[in-house]
Formats: sequence, C-alpha cells, structure tokens
Amino acid sequence: MDRKIYLDNASTTYISNEVLNEMMPCFSSIYGNANSIHSFGRDAQAMVDRARDKIAKAINANALELYFTSGGTEANNWAIKGIARANKERGRHIIVSKIEHESILQSCKELEKEGFEVTYLNVDNEGLVKIAELLHYIRKDTILVSIMAVNNEIGTIQNIKTIASIAHDNGAIFHTDAVQAIGNLKIDVEDMGIDAMTINAHKIYGPKGIGALYVKKGINIEPLIVGGNQERNRRGGTLNVPSIVGFGKALEIASRDLVANVQKLKTIRDYFVKNVMEKIEYVKYNGHPYQKVNNIVNLSFDLVEGEAVAMMLDLEGIAVSTGAACESGGVEPSHVILALENDENMARSAVRFSFSKSTTKDDIDYVVETLVKVIARLRSISAVTKTGRAK
Amino acid sequence: MDRKIYLDNASTTYISNEVLNEMMPCFSSIYGNANSIHSFGRDAQAMVDRARDKIAKAINANALELYFTSGGTEANNWAIKGIARANKERGRHIIVSKIEHESILQSCKELEKEGFEVTYLNVDNEGLVKIAELLHYIRKDTILVSIMAVNNEIGTIQNIKTIASIAHDNGAIFHTDAVQAIGNLKIDVEDMGIDAMTINAHKIYGPKGIGALYVKKGINIEPLIVGGNQERNRRGGTLNVPSIVGFGKALEIASRDLVANVQKLKTIRDYFVKNVMEKIEYVKYNGHPYQKVNNIVNLSFDLVEGEAVAMMLDLEGIAVSTGAACESGGVEPSHVILALENDENMARSAVRFSFSKSTTKDDIDYVVETLVKVIARLRSISAVTKTGRAK
Repeated sequence: MDRKIYLDNASTTYISNEVLNEMMPCFSSIYGNANSIHSFGRDAQAMVDRARDKIAKAINANALELYFTSGGTEANNWAIKGIARANKERGRHIIVSKIEHESILQSCKELEKEGFEVTYLNVDNEGLVKIAELLHYIRKDTILVSIMAVNNEIGTIQNIKTIASIAHDNGAIFHTDAVQAIGNLKIDVEDMGIDAMTINAHKIYGPKGIGALYVKKGINIEPLIVGGNQERNRRGGTLNVPSIVGFGKALEIASRDLVANVQKLKTIRDYFVKNVMEKIEYVKYNGHPYQKVNNIVNLSFDLVEGEAVAMMLDLEGIAVSTGAACESGGVEPSHVILALENDENMARSAVRFSFSKSTTKDDIDYVVETLVKVIARLRSISAVTKTGRAK
Repeated sequence: MDRKIYLDNASTTYISNEVLNEMMPCFSSIYGNANSIHSFGRDAQAMVDRARDKIAKAINANALELYFTSGGTEANNWAIKGIARANKERGRHIIVSKIEHESILQSCKELEKEGFEVTYLNVDNEGLVKIAELLHYIRKDTILVSIMAVNNEIGTIQNIKTIASIAHDNGAIFHTDAVQAIGNLKIDVEDMGIDAMTINAHKIYGPKGIGALYVKKGINIEPLIVGGNQERNRRGGTLNVPSIVGFGKALEIASRDLVANVQKLKTIRDYFVKNVMEKIEYVKYNGHPYQKVNNIVNLSFDLVEGEAVAMMLDLEGIAVSTGAACESGGVEPSHVILALENDENMARSAVRFSFSKSTTKDDIDYVVETLVKVIARLRSISAVTKTGRAK
C-alpha cells in the first residue's frame, strides 16, 4: 500500500502554499538584517512589522506587546522563568496544571531548584483544571498562574477566562500556552484577561522554528536570551524574517478561515469517532465530550498498547502518535492521560489522531478500515499473551 | 541611480540557491516532526542527521557533540550561562574580551548579578587579545574563558589555539564564538582545543534563525531551554528541519569552496582598500594588517561621522554599517573600535564594509566612486561646522 495519511497534525503541520509564497522573497531578495538602518534592513523591518501587526490583530493585542521567539518551547521557558525571576520579590509561589507541556513543567522544575514553590493542579477525568483546587491553593505570594488554553494530547479547552480572573483577584500574573488553541478557537487576550501567552506557527500551517510571547504592557519579565537591542531589548538575536513573515501569514489565514475550518474539522472528527465506535469494541474516548478543539481525538483501545497501534498503523502508511512528539521514544505512558484519573493501562493504550484542514472523509475511511484490522490483530496477540501468562 | 549594492554581509547574507533548493522539500513534503517515530518523523530525522553530519565534518567534531539552537545569540547565551552555572562549584571566575559580541557581554552581566566575577580582557590596537593579560588574570577558580575566533566588526583573527591551551593549563573550559570564522577560515575543534563553540547559518548564505552549539563530550553545561527530549535532553523544542538542512548545506558548501572564496574575497578586499587609500585622504584602517578574515574591512574617515557616511551611501543604494546590526540605532560609538585604544572620534568615524562571494570589482568601483563624493561632501560640511564652532 503506497498510500500515506498524516494524522499527527497536532505535532506539526505542513506549510501551506499561501504561507510559503509569502516567505519566498525573504530568502534571497529581501534578505537584510531587520535591525540594520540601510534600505535592505528597512525593507526587512517593514516585512516584520506587517507580520507583527497581523499576529497582534489576530489575538487583539498591541503589536509592541509581541516578542518573537524560536518557538513555543522557548516562549514557555521565557514566560515561566522570566516572569518568576522578575517578580520574586513579590512572592515565590507558582501554580500550573499537571497536564501542561513539558516545556512548562521542566521550567517549573528549574525554578524549584532556585527556591520557588510550584503547585501542580489536578484535572478532572475530562481534562479540565479543577477550579476548586485553584481556589484552594492560590495564596498571597502566588506570583504566576500558567494554564494551557488547549491541551495538546486530548484537546480539552480550559476555562481560561475564569482562571485568569481568579489569578488576578489574588494579585497573580496569568500566562497561557495557547499553541494548540490558535487556529482552533478565537483568542482575545483582552477579553480573556491574559497577561502573557505563548503561540507558534508550525501547528497552523506555518514554519517551524518561530513563535512569539505576548507580554501585556506593564508585566515584569526578565529576558531569557540577551544580546543586541532587538525586540525592545527583551530578546536578542537577528530576527528570523522569512519565518516571522510566514508566521504572520499563517495566523492571518487561520483567523480568516477559523469558522470554516472549525466546521470542517468537526465533520471529519465526528465522522471518525462515529465510525471507530461502531466498528471497534472497548474504546474509551479521552478528554472532554464537547469543551474541546476539533482537530484532536484521543482514544484508548482496551487490551492493546498505544505504541503498538501507532507502529502498526505506520506500517500501513498512517501517521498517528501516542502523545506529544517531544516525549516520543520514552517508555513512560503519557503524563496527560495518567492525570485524567485513569489507570496506567488506559494511558498505555492511548492513541492521538489529529487532523488537518486537508484531511478527507476518504482518508478517514481508509484509516478506520486499517485500524479495525490492527486492533483485531493486536488483541488476538494480547489474548494469547494473557493466556500464556495465566498458565 | 537604481543600482543597489549590499556590503553588509558580515551582518547577514542572502540564502544561496543551492541552499534554498535543499531546504524546499522540507517545507511541504518532508514536514514531519523529527521527534515522531512514524515514517513522516523518521524522514525528517534522516534529513536532520545528514545535516548534523555535514556540520560535524566541517569542524571536525562528532555529530553528537552538536546541539541546534535558534542562532548565534542563543548559542552564546547558552554557552556562557550554561557552562558557568553547571561548573560554579569549581569556581566563579570567567574571562572574556572587551570586543566580544553583545550576546556574550550581556550574558556576563547577568552572571555578575548571580555572583560570578568576570574579567574583560583588553585588546591591542590591532584587535588582538593581550595574551599577557590573559596569563595575568587567569586563576585557579577561572572556570570559563570565552574569546571570539574572529571579530565581527574588524575581522581580526584571534590566537585561538594559544588561548585555548592557556585556559586548559589552568583548568578552565574554553568557548569560542566562531560565527564570523566559519566560511572564512578552517576551524578544527580538535586541533584548536575548543571545548564549546557557537556557529550559525545566516552569515554563510544559509537561513536566519538557526545555529548550533558544539559542546565537547564531557563538558558540563546546563540547558537554557528545557522541554521535550530533543537534542539528547539538552535543548527542548521541535527541530527546525528546513533550517537545519539549510545550515548543513551552507556549511558543506562553505567548506568545499573555502580556498576559492578566501582568495576571491582577498582580491576584492585588497582592490577596495587600495582604491580607497589612493582616492581618499585621512583614512585609518582599523584592525590587524594581516591576521584577519578577507570579507570585512573597517575604516575610519577622519572628520566625519560613520553614521553619516552609512546614511549617505544608503541614499546611493549602497548598504554598509557602522558596527554590529544588533546595536544599530544606538548613539554610542562601537565598543569594538573604542577597545582598539582609539579615541572616541575615530570610533565615531568607523564604517564597516563587508563583502560576499558575489561582490564584483565593478561593484567596488561604484562604491569607491560614490564614497569619494560622500566623504568630500561630509568633510566640507564638517569644515563649515568647525569654522562655525570656532567663532
């Protein structure tokens, strides 16, 4: 079978032609350093300014509240460590959830070594942060609350506005990792009460290696990467003009097509879930039944290992994942599925299917047909193994 | 005059077609996450591996001693802060030179706030680090010496091998910022005794936004950006596959064409300097007369401001700079030229001309012709001003 179907779009997407076309002139024609004062530099700077404006408009921010980074991971590192270190005189307590991205969790581990205290909130079995826990643990010296807008493995959408308002009521800064949110739901930093927000391009048909941190005017943050006077002295390094331009275009398109894409992905996702549930027994749906984005489905197949499902689908040309790509190759089950009050077996059985705006019903038919066979085969092996063990 | 000539290649270069062609398939075809275990991911990983091998070969390192970053600035931040913090139990003294890139100097300022002590070595008036000073200041608790291989404003090549050996004799780790060196001279980390080295792509006809830190096996360094298990757990973040591929190709080409390019640039540089010296009076050559790379010339034009020269050349379509682009827009004279034991006036008069492998003698003729007029005009204004002031 030569067919190849990519259902790992929550990990990274292809770059759309519209985006690539916008980037092309910046490689070999408008190639100046955006910080240079000559015409080559000014032309590059103008491209950066236009992209910054597009991104600012998409999230209802001021362009000067955006700082370009090398991606979501850098922006998350910067937000957590930069805000904590800049505000440590006010307190040393931080609150995040247990299902944050590793770049948040690992940054918290670093801060713990520096003397900060971090509370890791539980989520309910649909992946929602427990608001009662947040209210219980937040305190006078809490300086930062960081909760992701949309989880990358299960797609659950958090109650960001409520969480932000609780943070603010207690004098804390609110950051959100919105990498999986942009392109899937409308984000308005003003309306939602977001003080700092991580976004990037490579999940919305833009280039890899570019992201941004939104930092609301007035929020104190220490730089993570120092050097020249770029980004108003907050992030050194020659601006990555082609990628910034691609990011701007990708988010502009994502905002323009938001309603249509959301509807298209909902149709695909519902069609996929309905078919799987009809044709395969003992499947558990991980995540929230409706408060979720439409591009991600996470399913646990009882009695099989998610890793085995992913590998066998791969042999048939279908790309899926068992969690975040960042953690691939590890033997541990997903920390996200484990946090859903599931048992370890269900976490080990989890598979993430994530769709793109180009995924078709025909793709889904092929995937479901293949999945039926793969699960049947794995369960037959599993049954044998279990019998063997029982002896 | 519609002619445009770019002589700011030490700031950033265009991407060569050979490099761009290599990158193109990675945007929309081989677009997987290199960390994913499925075929899309493995294909991306294979591209990354090939690029890593090319870079390792070019500097005589092991591929697993290379860690991709978002550029030279991140790599310099990481090297300085990461090595210092990981080795602070052995000592808290660091040595750098006064003419390092801002990303090194600013990182040192951060470390000073954390309790480290930094010695900033002087350079002689040709830009060479004073070895006697290094020998004088290095001590038992010196954990890190960082000296750039080639200065970005004047092109002086440091005595890296000697400096590395002094560092090692005193138990210190040696890091070098080789961003301006690769492509202009042969770098062999083994032979030169380099423990850590910063390189990037956008000065050698590769893409912006990608660099690497070489870290010799066994050297302790803390991560700067944490997250997933990428880069052997030392640098989180989805790998920027197209840019990594472009970086590998750019360095492969730079190594392949090194001898030819060096000769070509020498011819262009000598032709430029000879013509300027013949046609313009009171010009001072900044930097070393021969221990230097061929793509950079730094000249001070007595009685005029470098900034004014750059602006007037820009009006004629010629792009040059007065220092590092990172510092553009500042009112301070270059910290590098100031460090050459020059007076502030000479520093304010400095202009950097940096050539590419595509710069022609015809370009130089036009630049020199224009420069003669620009300097004459500025000096006539300057004379009037001085007369006015004298009244």
